[in-house]
Amino acid sequence: MDPKRKRTRGLPVTRLETLADGVFAIVMTILVLDLRVPEVIGPGGLAGDLAALWPRFATYFISFIVLGIYWFAQHQIFHFLARVNRTLVWLNIVFFMGVALTPFAASLLGKYPEDRVALAFYGILLALLALLGYAIWWYMTGDRGLVDMELDPKLVRKVRIWFLGGPAATLLAIGLAFVNTFLSLLVYIILPAIYIFLNPVDRYLAELRREGIG
Amino acid sequence: MDPKRKRTRGLPVTRLETLADGVFAIVMTILVLDLRVPEVIGPGGLAGDLAALWPRFATYFISFIVLGIYWFAQHQIFHFLARVNRTLVWLNIVFFMGVALTPFAASLLGKYPEDRVALAFYGILLALLALLGYAIWWYMTGDRGLVDMELDPKLVRKVRIWFLGGPAATLLAIGLAFVNTFLSLLVYIILPAIYIFLNPVDRYLAELRREGIG
Amino acid sequence: MDPKRKRTRGLPVTRLETLADGVFAIVMTILVLDLRVPEVIGPGGLAGDLAALWPRFATYFISFIVLGIYWFAQHQIFHFLARVNRTLVWLNIVFFMGVALTPFAASLLGKYPEDRVALAFYGILLALLALLGYAIWWYMTGDRGLVDMELDPKLVRKVRIWFLGGPAATLLAIGLAFVNTFLSLLVYIILPAIYIFLNPVDRYLAELRREGIG
Amino acid sequence: MDPKRKRTRGLPVTRLETLADGVFAIVMTILVLDLRVPEVIGPGGLAGDLAALWPRFATYFISFIVLGIYWFAQHQIFHFLARVNRTLVWLNIVFFMGVALTPFAASLLGKYPEDRVALAFYGILLALLALLGYAIWWYMTGDRGLVDMELDPKLVRKVRIWFLGGPAATLLAIGLAFVNTFLSLLVYIILPAIYIFLNPVDRYLAELRREGIG
Repeated sequence: MDPKRKRTRGLPVTRLETLADGVFAIVMTILVLDLRVPEVIGPGGLAGDLAALWPRFATYFISFIVLGIYWFAQHQIFHFLARVNRTLVWLNIVFFMGVALTPFAASLLGKYPEDRVALAFYGILLALLALLGYAIWWYMTGDRGLVDMELDPKLVRKVRIWFLGGPAATLLAIGLAFVNTFLSLLVYIILPAIYIFLNPVDRYLAELRREGIG
Repeated sequence: MDPKRKRTRGLPVTRLETLADGVFAIVMTILVLDLRVPEVIGPGGLAGDLAALWPRFATYFISFIVLGIYWFAQHQIFHFLARVNRTLVWLNIVFFMGVALTPFAASLLGKYPEDRVALAFYGILLALLALLGYAIWWYMTGDRGLVDMELDPKLVRKVRIWFLGGPAATLLAIGLAFVNTFLSLLVYIILPAIYIFLNPVDRYLAELRREGIG
Repeated sequence: MDPKRKRTRGLPVTRLETLADGVFAIVMTILVLDLRVPEVIGPGGLAGDLAALWPRFATYFISFIVLGIYWFAQHQIFHFLARVNRTLVWLNIVFFMGVALTPFAASLLGKYPEDRVALAFYGILLALLALLGYAIWWYMTGDRGLVDMELDPKLVRKVRIWFLGGPAATLLAIGLAFVNTFLSLLVYIILPAIYIFLNPVDRYLAELRREGIG
Repeated sequence: MDPKRKRTRGLPVTRLETLADGVFAIVMTILVLDLRVPEVIGPGGLAGDLAALWPRFATYFISFIVLGIYWFAQHQIFHFLARVNRTLVWLNIVFFMGVALTPFAASLLGKYPEDRVALAFYGILLALLALLGYAIWWYMTGDRGLVDMELDPKLVRKVRIWFLGGPAATLLAIGLAFVNTFLSLLVYIILPAIYIFLNPVDRYLAELRREGIG
């Protein structure tokens, strides 16, 4: 296929990837704006003031990790993508709209870490992002000519389950917020770790390399 | 054509695209800075405070979608571009200057959603951006050697009309702002949906694929 | 030359370009943060409040154009670059450090448009950036194997003069700031226009195309 | 190797590089948000107000240079990388998490330049970043198929020492903070200069070119 033909065939993936990387880089970075330098030093000294900021440090770390998970998931599924179309672009823009809301949700949780509404808002946002991830994967792996090779149906199914696990666990966290806010926070802390270690795409690529197929 | 020659021929499109993606990613993301976490919780609880933020959430969503439309339009027309020159770079920098103003216009509308001046400011900005899009498309499709293939004159015309439809509808919204601010807001809400579904470039590329030409 | 060899030969230009595009995109965009939505509407209505913001709008426009000029200049001279080394990377990082200061200088000028110190600070920053541009061009066109083709000595000389013209004019503006602040502001408004129209790289590339050499 | 195969083999390095460039560009740029334009002009005029901002200007310059060093180090070691895997991506995301904290650490030091806690916080962050750089280099140069050529063991060792030198010197600075805050600040000022001039990767690549091997 010569480049000209490729041109007219469809829109390349690269610019949507650049926009995604830009949005994630900025969202990750502006999380830090929520960490405010104390205006005056309290009786416990600067160390005491910094220690008092712990809920904001905690939401900074959790949110950064969560954004890292979403970025890596988007990176991994786009790896199989050959071109984009209008619907896929718009699914992604709505996904970015949710991603860009995370600093607000994190700020809310950092200021009111024991408020059920703040916990639920954070949870609903994370669940929506995972559902959008599911929708993007479902749409791009359908018979639309957007992936340029035979995708292993086992991988397609595993990634779908992976995307649905998030909202399920988050619903649990939202429910727990109305019983015990500490248990709810705990789900948000444990969930990212599970997502980092159970990564179906990473496993699939590693298997391919081991089998010497890829 | 060897790479060296290509070098001296003209400036590549990629860096202007990276700058565009960066500007759009940042502008989309800083829209969220307008959503402020309530300093104290009101009598209606945090849920009540968040509900009171609805005009800001609404302008966040509308502005994000509008920026998505402009980004996608720029992405689509740059798809046909082979190289840039000074005039095209400057038309784009002026376009970015308007894009970077949208958070201010959105913030104004989020704070004063029923003020005619805020509605008109937002509308004039959107209309100017569409006119700049028209100017960029008109300039690059002229006989200047900036596109490297025969562009279908039908596509050229359709995209021109597409860009002019925006200012026309926006003028209507600005006029309505002085009659009824609710009707004016309604135009801003309906207009993006029309632009998402009526996309001449997407249709053109889909037709090419169906006809098996591309 | 095979890719592996190219790898060990030197660092590619692309990442420094991506960093540059990122820095410029952010700096251009955060200029807008200086435009604050009025907290309360004054007696002249929102239109009056916006009109009162004119010095900030003016510095927004001038600074955006000036940043566009520096971005385009960096884009154009990097077009001739084949690889980077430590010194060139650091010259650029210092250049970015100055670029990232422009929102502060613009904010200062937007708040105190008739203060000589604000006018001089802005001017000194612009002059330093042009001198750094000169240093980057001088360093990369020297006999260091950083450009991969015979550069026309006429172009090298013209671009040098182009970079030195800025500081010269800016010194004039700084001097005028101590005589008449209006004249000083005028230089900052006229200078960008001259730089946009007198672009030696653009002319050189256009000539190459006309002569059919490139 | 055909592109399809390359696809299934592993994740490319480019997107992690784009994310890195984005994070560094934003972090470098938002350092400037800490430089606030004086609300009212003091008795010493604007020049006096700007002079009073010197600790913030100093931390701006030091932090920008330090971020430049980390960016360049990451750029240089990624030059040898052929693909990424899950662990390497996560080591980098944790690295970015630290990088994104630097504006907070710089802001703390800019406001309380003589507070031991601020000095220690800044130092610990820089040391952690260097240790993460060491971990990334150690992981990628291990026998994991992430680098696609025989890396000179001498280079591997030199870069390891380079990354460990930072934390060692920073520990010294942290210790000095409890003896004399001025000496501690001095270490932070001198250290970057050493890191700029002693660059093992740059030397290695320069040697390769001289020997005509590369």
